[in-house]
Amino acid sequence: MSTARHYKIGLLGCGTVGQGLVELVNRNRGLIRERSGIELSFTKILVRDLAKKRPGVDRNLLTIQPDHVINNGCDVVVELVGGLEPARSFIQRALSGRKHVVTANKALLAADGFALLNKAVSQRVQFGFEASVCAGIPIIRALQSGLVGNSIRSLTGILNGTCNYILTRMADAGMPFVDALREAQGKGFAEADPTLDVDGYDAAQKLKILAEIAWGGRIALETVQIEGIRNITLDDVDSARKLGYAVKQVAHAEFNDGGVSLSVHPALLPMAHPLASVRDENNAVQVKGDAVGEMFFHGKGAGSLPSASAVLSDIVDIASHKRSLTRISARAVPVAGADLPYQRYLRFPVGEPSAIGKITSALERQGIGVDRAAAIWAKTSSEQSQVKFVTQSCQADTLRAALSMVSTLGLLQGDYVALRLAA
Amino acid sequence: MSTARHYKIGLLGCGTVGQGLVELVNRNRGLIRERSGIELSFTKILVRDLAKKRPGVDRNLLTIQPDHVINNGCDVVVELVGGLEPARSFIQRALSGRKHVVTANKALLAADGFALLNKAVSQRVQFGFEASVCAGIPIIRALQSGLVGNSIRSLTGILNGTCNYILTRMADAGMPFVDALREAQGKGFAEADPTLDVDGYDAAQKLKILAEIAWGGRIALETVQIEGIRNITLDDVDSARKLGYAVKQVAHAEFNDGGVSLSVHPALLPMAHPLASVRDENNAVQVKGDAVGEMFFHGKGAGSLPSASAVLSDIVDIASHKRSLTRISARAVPVAGADLPYQRYLRFPVGEPSAIGKITSALERQGIGVDRAAAIWAKTSSEQSQVKFVTQSCQADTLRAALSMVSTLGLLQGDYVALRLAA
Repeated sequence: MSTARHYKIGLLGCGTVGQGLVELVNRNRGLIRERSGIELSFTKILVRDLAKKRPGVDRNLLTIQPDHVINNGCDVVVELVGGLEPARSFIQRALSGRKHVVTANKALLAADGFALLNKAVSQRVQFGFEASVCAGIPIIRALQSGLVGNSIRSLTGILNGTCNYILTRMADAGMPFVDALREAQGKGFAEADPTLDVDGYDAAQKLKILAEIAWGGRIALETVQIEGIRNITLDDVDSARKLGYAVKQVAHAEFNDGGVSLSVHPALLPMAHPLASVRDENNAVQVKGDAVGEMFFHGKGAGSLPSASAVLSDIVDIASHKRSLTRISARAVPVAGADLPYQRYLRFPVGEPSAIGKITSALERQGIGVDRAAAIWAKTSSEQSQVKFVTQSCQADTLRAALSMVSTLGLLQGDYVALRLAA
Repeated sequence: MSTARHYKIGLLGCGTVGQGLVELVNRNRGLIRERSGIELSFTKILVRDLAKKRPGVDRNLLTIQPDHVINNGCDVVVELVGGLEPARSFIQRALSGRKHVVTANKALLAADGFALLNKAVSQRVQFGFEASVCAGIPIIRALQSGLVGNSIRSLTGILNGTCNYILTRMADAGMPFVDALREAQGKGFAEADPTLDVDGYDAAQKLKILAEIAWGGRIALETVQIEGIRNITLDDVDSARKLGYAVKQVAHAEFNDGGVSLSVHPALLPMAHPLASVRDENNAVQVKGDAVGEMFFHGKGAGSLPSASAVLSDIVDIASHKRSLTRISARAVPVAGADLPYQRYLRFPVGEPSAIGKITSALERQGIGVDRAAAIWAKTSSEQSQVKFVTQSCQADTLRAALSMVSTLGLLQGDYVALRLAA
């Protein structure tokens, strides 16, 4: 074995992931040296509060001056501060100084990834962001390298651990939405602002990052159709299970008719679907490629060490010159207006069973077939009566027209819910 | 986008995977150029029979002279001839001429991977072999790069598509072993010599390749304990399902007490185990790492385009200077003698129900607890009576002693079957 080459990390931020990185580098330093010939060390670590306890972190490395990290002889700057500012400025200064950069910052990447990547390209330095999506699951590598010879047909993922945890707890423990959310917050993997999780923005940011790599161009975050999971009730989860489905928050991008359609939405997945059995805060991605067919990746999508594992893989690859510059073309990826037909699960809060006939007729007038006899009528614990249908396949446009018609009937005592029976 | 760099492939062998590679390069050439800046082309293609029809392959590229491929200005030599010779000599000549090499040849890698890798290192050229295990699933990349910061605890996989196809057909269609094997051969994914599949050698070769990367040293193929699936009957598969398990051929490597234990064996997996739902000829690998926890990869493990996808990913990575030299140390990985306790499923062919009590007593005398009341007694279609038990956890050594004791009782009318209730 040849002698190891020293490689120095300047670390910005020492929160959950930062401390995980320090722990992992210290624990597996010998292993990494054996595997890659690289001997890793930290130059400086930026923190906000020097006095805070950080077990396993050498206090002599801490600084509150960003420049002591960025301009201090490190080989790579690792940004784990999170958020847009000052993370963006830190990265720009690092790139200006021709430092390689590794980040786990999905919000920043979703907002400014293209500009930062471009700057890295023009500075001829590397920019790694494996940790920004699905933590330790090497899905960005898979798209950039393992599947590089494939035309990607679709990406379908469970990209938000909080939503998946909530929906798992609702299904398995019969726990109401708000209690499950509180539990996720207590366990520390919900975003500081949980609306980013439950309203689908977090998953949309990650989907955009993956889709830009898969289809090699820019995609505006606004083109992702987003629907949250707040309206999903225990009753929906239970009805879905009785029908043979699991309710999941799905992020889906699909190439059709020369364009990509992107959405984040709750959906009913058949139990045999690989994403249906993804539990708790785990993440998973199904990729369909023209050569490999269906490929499935599953693992922990968040957490200190899983995220640190991804950050570390970028550092080692950059140190080993294993990465070439990621190319995302300046062209926008065409966005498809494809309105594909799906079966739907519909739930309407109504006052009395007689509503079944009236709603069915309204749907049928719009050409949406419903098995009237299979309609599920139930008084839920909140004393609100509900009627539920599974429709035949219909397009979203048709459904929208039909639902607005139903809304005018004067029968609804609250908001309806409409969910796809497919990813 | 900068102008593309031309990169020339010399192809040895134009069978299933070779033709897939030609098809894929021709189909996705533009996509690959956009993603990587590399413009791929073929210089020459070695075949045995120039006259054979190969749809989509330019006849002007064909040659029956290996040297016309290896020494003809190509940048990378792709070996898809298979088998030990002449594939090994071809690769050695290519490496001697300082050509990069990509191969899908698991048999050659299992036999001589270390010597070939070493030669590539000393010649300072690249040696890619992603296609040798699990075809299009980028599992070798995952171990070399995505999980590089992890100490690997275990690798558990379904690595042989033929065995998994056979066991799937037995479970789902009630098809006897021999018919299911014949079907797999008809579909073209069984090895030419199916004993390599059903007796576990193919999976053992792949497990050795993965384990050498995971634990960074040499592992002798002979250290893999191998058990085939020939003795598994429809009755076993059916009993397992009734108990809540799926019978799978599992390849398992685990690090314990400073060493790795490796085995290929049929096992009963609880239905909730991720490998239990791997169907047909698909492959999957579960990796446990100290940082990422459990990670799961699933996809097509064989076939023309999935394998070509993996070959192509190596070519593009090498062309983009994305790969550094794979390092496998000359040291042998310590092999553990760990004899971990597992529950077992036992089946004994016996003449009469009274055997239950005698066998149970014999097992209990060796300290292997059995729920006598739960023993399953059945006369199978072959008119052979069988008694089946699930034991409490016991070590292999204890079990071996107990089974040899049972053999001396004069009750058995054929071979017994003993399977783990875990991967």
